[in-house]
Amino acid sequence: MSTDRTIRDLLEKQAIYELMAHYADRIDANDPEGAAACFAEDGLGVYWQDCIGPVAIAERLVGILDRFHATSHHLSNVQIRLNGDTATAQAYVYAFHRVKADMENPMHYWGRWVDELAKIDGAWKFKRREVVGIGSISRGTDDLDHPGHPGRLSREAPKADFG
Amino acid sequence: MSTDRTIRDLLEKQAIYELMAHYADRIDANDPEGAAACFAEDGLGVYWQDCIGPVAIAERLVGILDRFHATSHHLSNVQIRLNGDTATAQAYVYAFHRVKADMENPMHYWGRWVDELAKIDGAWKFKRREVVGIGSISRGTDDLDHPGHPGRLSREAPKADFG
Amino acid sequence: MSTDRTIRDLLEKQAIYELMAHYADRIDANDPEGAAACFAEDGLGVYWQDCIGPVAIAERLVGILDRFHATSHHLSNVQIRLNGDTATAQAYVYAFHRVKADMENPMHYWGRWVDELAKIDGAWKFKRREVVGIGSISRGTDDLDHPGHPGRLSREAPKADFG
Repeated sequence: MSTDRTIRDLLEKQAIYELMAHYADRIDANDPEGAAACFAEDGLGVYWQDCIGPVAIAERLVGILDRFHATSHHLSNVQIRLNGDTATAQAYVYAFHRVKADMENPMHYWGRWVDELAKIDGAWKFKRREVVGIGSISRGTDDLDHPGHPGRLSREAPKADFG
Repeated sequence: MSTDRTIRDLLEKQAIYELMAHYADRIDANDPEGAAACFAEDGLGVYWQDCIGPVAIAERLVGILDRFHATSHHLSNVQIRLNGDTATAQAYVYAFHRVKADMENPMHYWGRWVDELAKIDGAWKFKRREVVGIGSISRGTDDLDHPGHPGRLSREAPKADFG
Repeated sequence: MSTDRTIRDLLEKQAIYELMAHYADRIDANDPEGAAACFAEDGLGVYWQDCIGPVAIAERLVGILDRFHATSHHLSNVQIRLNGDTATAQAYVYAFHRVKADMENPMHYWGRWVDELAKIDGAWKFKRREVVGIGSISRGTDDLDHPGHPGRLSREAPKADFG
């Protein structure tokens, strides 16, 4: 029955939301291994470069997180499309960063997380997760070079997957 | 049974949340027609002036969005009251704006979306959506003239609908 | 059946989310009594000092809120662990504050709400709610003294409850 299917979908969406929130929690706890464990064994993390698998992803996150005294990644606008045991998703993120090298001037970041997911042994994992920048504020840095929300810069451009 | 009713309500709330997230996605993709399509045919968009129907709403959004190189509307605190095939809702929004005329100084905006909705042919649409400002940061602009959260300015004032 | 249990859990989580959103709504409406009513009769609010019970909590909130012309508390990253009629939870909060004494310079605050909850007479209430600071921007104030996300400052530290 259609309602049963919709309820199951809702439960899957909640599980994916909880994975996203857990990932942010682990990033902000400065726990690169914990964050990387949200990926599938062959998962691809695109952090301005490609990292394949939890070990490489954790290593990359160590390098990123070491620059910051504190971070706080605020998740919103979760959109999920289910397709059986796989899914695509996007969510917005605003992140506050206290920068070790310049403690008086936090770095701010706005972007979207673009995800491909798979349910593996009953648990959702990221198969691919990319951080797409929308904007940032960061003293002493050119902060305007962001790809932006898909389709933003031209009304004639192909529109985002989440249309 | 009460639980069935509650589950149905939860599914309706999820559908309304997805409409809200889709609207923000279309705004940030610079897709005024896509955003306006979230309204009913006789829907009223209150964007500091009244716009009735998707065509007028899209036209208004073109004018607003053309000022910005990029926007990012972050949705939170979703509260929904269902009443059969209609609903009222509010959600918080924080929005980042990269301003074409002043690329170094983003505009920040805090507000709430106050909505009336109807389920039409199986899909939720906005019957009325108003942006209520709480605060903003915008260089060179008087940014203090916001109505604020309902009831904020006087403890004796009538309280918000969402009480 | 496992799915029924999961659906019931989802309904409880939605109810807790709505309590959190209602609390923020009442704070931002400058309604200390309305916010304090989200606590159990013996509930503990930790607002940089311990306040027990709705009357003491409301009194404390009056003192805090009186400093601000407007506030806006944006809730995200909700994580909830249910245990029958009790639960633990955390959520992220970013808060905008228009400061009466310095209307040109808003105060910004990033933190997490850490909660213990109980379902009392069919309604979830806070048994304990603590605001844990991650960072702030506040002109003329030393804003670096925040405990931060648990475990953030040392990778060897015990990790957060939400692991």
